[in-house]
Amino acid sequence: MRFIDCEDVVDIATGSALLGAGGGGDPYMGKLETITAIRECGPVQLLDADEVPDEWTVASIGSVGAPSVVLEKGVNGSEYAIAHDFLQRILGKKIDAFVLAEAGGLNSLVPIAAAARVGIPVVNVDGMGRAFPGLQQDTYCLNGVPTTPMVFVDEKGNRSVIETIDNDWAETIGRAITSASGGAIINMGASMTGAKMKQCAVRGTVDLAQRLGAIIRQATSVSAECGMTPQEYFLHESGAYLFMHAKIADVLRETRDGFNFGRAVLEGIGQDRTKTGSVVYQNENLYAEVDGDVVISVPDLVCLVDADTFLPITTESLHYGKRVLLVGLSCDKAWRTTEGLALGGPAWFGFDIDYIPVEEQWKRIFCATMP
Amino acid sequence: MRFIDCEDVVDIATGSALLGAGGGGDPYMGKLETITAIRECGPVQLLDADEVPDEWTVASIGSVGAPSVVLEKGVNGSEYAIAHDFLQRILGKKIDAFVLAEAGGLNSLVPIAAAARVGIPVVNVDGMGRAFPGLQQDTYCLNGVPTTPMVFVDEKGNRSVIETIDNDWAETIGRAITSASGGAIINMGASMTGAKMKQCAVRGTVDLAQRLGAIIRQATSVSAECGMTPQEYFLHESGAYLFMHAKIADVLRETRDGFNFGRAVLEGIGQDRTKTGSVVYQNENLYAEVDGDVVISVPDLVCLVDADTFLPITTESLHYGKRVLLVGLSCDKAWRTTEGLALGGPAWFGFDIDYIPVEEQWKRIFCATMP
Repeated sequence: MRFIDCEDVVDIATGSALLGAGGGGDPYMGKLETITAIRECGPVQLLDADEVPDEWTVASIGSVGAPSVVLEKGVNGSEYAIAHDFLQRILGKKIDAFVLAEAGGLNSLVPIAAAARVGIPVVNVDGMGRAFPGLQQDTYCLNGVPTTPMVFVDEKGNRSVIETIDNDWAETIGRAITSASGGAIINMGASMTGAKMKQCAVRGTVDLAQRLGAIIRQATSVSAECGMTPQEYFLHESGAYLFMHAKIADVLRETRDGFNFGRAVLEGIGQDRTKTGSVVYQNENLYAEVDGDVVISVPDLVCLVDADTFLPITTESLHYGKRVLLVGLSCDKAWRTTEGLALGGPAWFGFDIDYIPVEEQWKRIFCATMP
Repeated sequence: MRFIDCEDVVDIATGSALLGAGGGGDPYMGKLETITAIRECGPVQLLDADEVPDEWTVASIGSVGAPSVVLEKGVNGSEYAIAHDFLQRILGKKIDAFVLAEAGGLNSLVPIAAAARVGIPVVNVDGMGRAFPGLQQDTYCLNGVPTTPMVFVDEKGNRSVIETIDNDWAETIGRAITSASGGAIINMGASMTGAKMKQCAVRGTVDLAQRLGAIIRQATSVSAECGMTPQEYFLHESGAYLFMHAKIADVLRETRDGFNFGRAVLEGIGQDRTKTGSVVYQNENLYAEVDGDVVISVPDLVCLVDADTFLPITTESLHYGKRVLLVGLSCDKAWRTTEGLALGGPAWFGFDIDYIPVEEQWKRIFCATMP
């Protein structure tokens, strides 16, 4: 157990944005909201999974919708208590702690801000080990936790709760509510016992995010002490696989059905100047191609980071001319099972792509061409 | 107090379809569903408003969405009990009786079928004295009854409840849920005490519908006994104002955002053969023009009935070549106040039309030209 204070929030936001794989919301919004909540309500108790009593009820909380809309609408801070009260009323029992729905610049922090405002602990776990666009794409659902009853509360104070016959209907109806409320909303669901959470959550997410955030923050200053360039330090310490040095040559965007859809076109720079590539996204980056070859795909993490600062670039902040590194991170092992791939793999998104783990892809491409 | 049995249902369905002003759902669907429910569960107790104890809680129930979709999807009969249970859970109290949300071929009967299946009475009132497309366009809302909490249950078993900051948001979010569930859904809301209901409901709706249904059924057989043609009998007994004998020359339709939108083009026949006209609708008929002159508009009832049988024609069953009478009926007086016109008049639908009561219009047009 430890307490999360304002100074922890900055690294958690940065590292979560990397885990968000382009999605999971803007880390700046997440920081602002969470630092305000902690200043007003005090530090938040962070429990490790094993510290949660089996008989507790925990629920996940996050922001749903198009990240570009969240940037404009924001949250007003009162949604969390409204959602917590409403879900407790429906369940007829107390919700003792929040878990993260997903890792992301905003969505790792919403549960922390909510925990501060509601006055309950947050658990050091999430349901993805990354971010995914679908409400039902998490390891909670993968392990039989019904995602509903799920509550939606918008910044105006409108609230809804849905109970659906399956998790796919939760996504369909929940997304419609999100769109009707303007394209972004706070949601709370996947309520489960502490015992169930221990079986199915991805553990240590907040710690991992904070560690990744510290690596990114320190890369430019401490790398020399370790005899590495900043880029080497970032890649080595984070476990990210580098596929391309690039400049963003074009961004195609569409905001539709409560999602951001699009494609970033990459033009190689430096040692990769002869290459071209692209990243296709739906809130999160879904797959990346280099010279017509798919090099990283869901459920692994497809990330674009700033070429100099290694700060993760979320899909809503992609813009022409930005110099980036295209990197991949291995997903949690839960996503590499048959069931995991069915819910989080390329086919779920309608892509005819054979999933090959990112570390194998990297070896195939770079170890063969090494001298 | 009386009991509604299967033989009452036929006239109630027909008369309600006339009050539905083109909307409120198909009377055939309403009949099938209600007769089945009464056969399986027994006759339904119909209470007059004054027979309802002040401290009871009543709620309105109906079918929302595009009537053309209801025709295809139908209801499966289990929605009512699910909705009743869910709303009771949210309110934390018993719902003692149902009231009609609106009068309509389907929507006058859904509360009767629901009352049969749930085993509670239905009250002889509705919230419009007609049908309107908006969830918030009723005399309950007009008198300060919040339309939410409102429950939505689809035929698959998906259920939602919304609590909104105002009634317009209920319409926006409720309509999105309806669309996501396929375009038609059962809803229950506007819960209020018996005392409040007595203040704001339109009274006697089921009786009126049954009387209008009987008039239509008897017109062709009993009119001669009264020394009238069937058409004279229908107009005289129902209080409908005749504006045009016509043939439907074209129907423009669009199903969008959980509504049916469209326009029926009328070509005069018989004594009106030199005239042209049209009826514009959004689920319900909203206004009618004859020779470029608006002759009937909301909140009055714009109705098309079969020229021979006087059976009301709902907007989803309009078709080329049908011979019709264009008639208007006066709306309940609640709609002719400033507040009533703001919620149910032409401006609410975005039309730049000055509302003139249908009986004045009829006098203006026909009394001036009478010999």
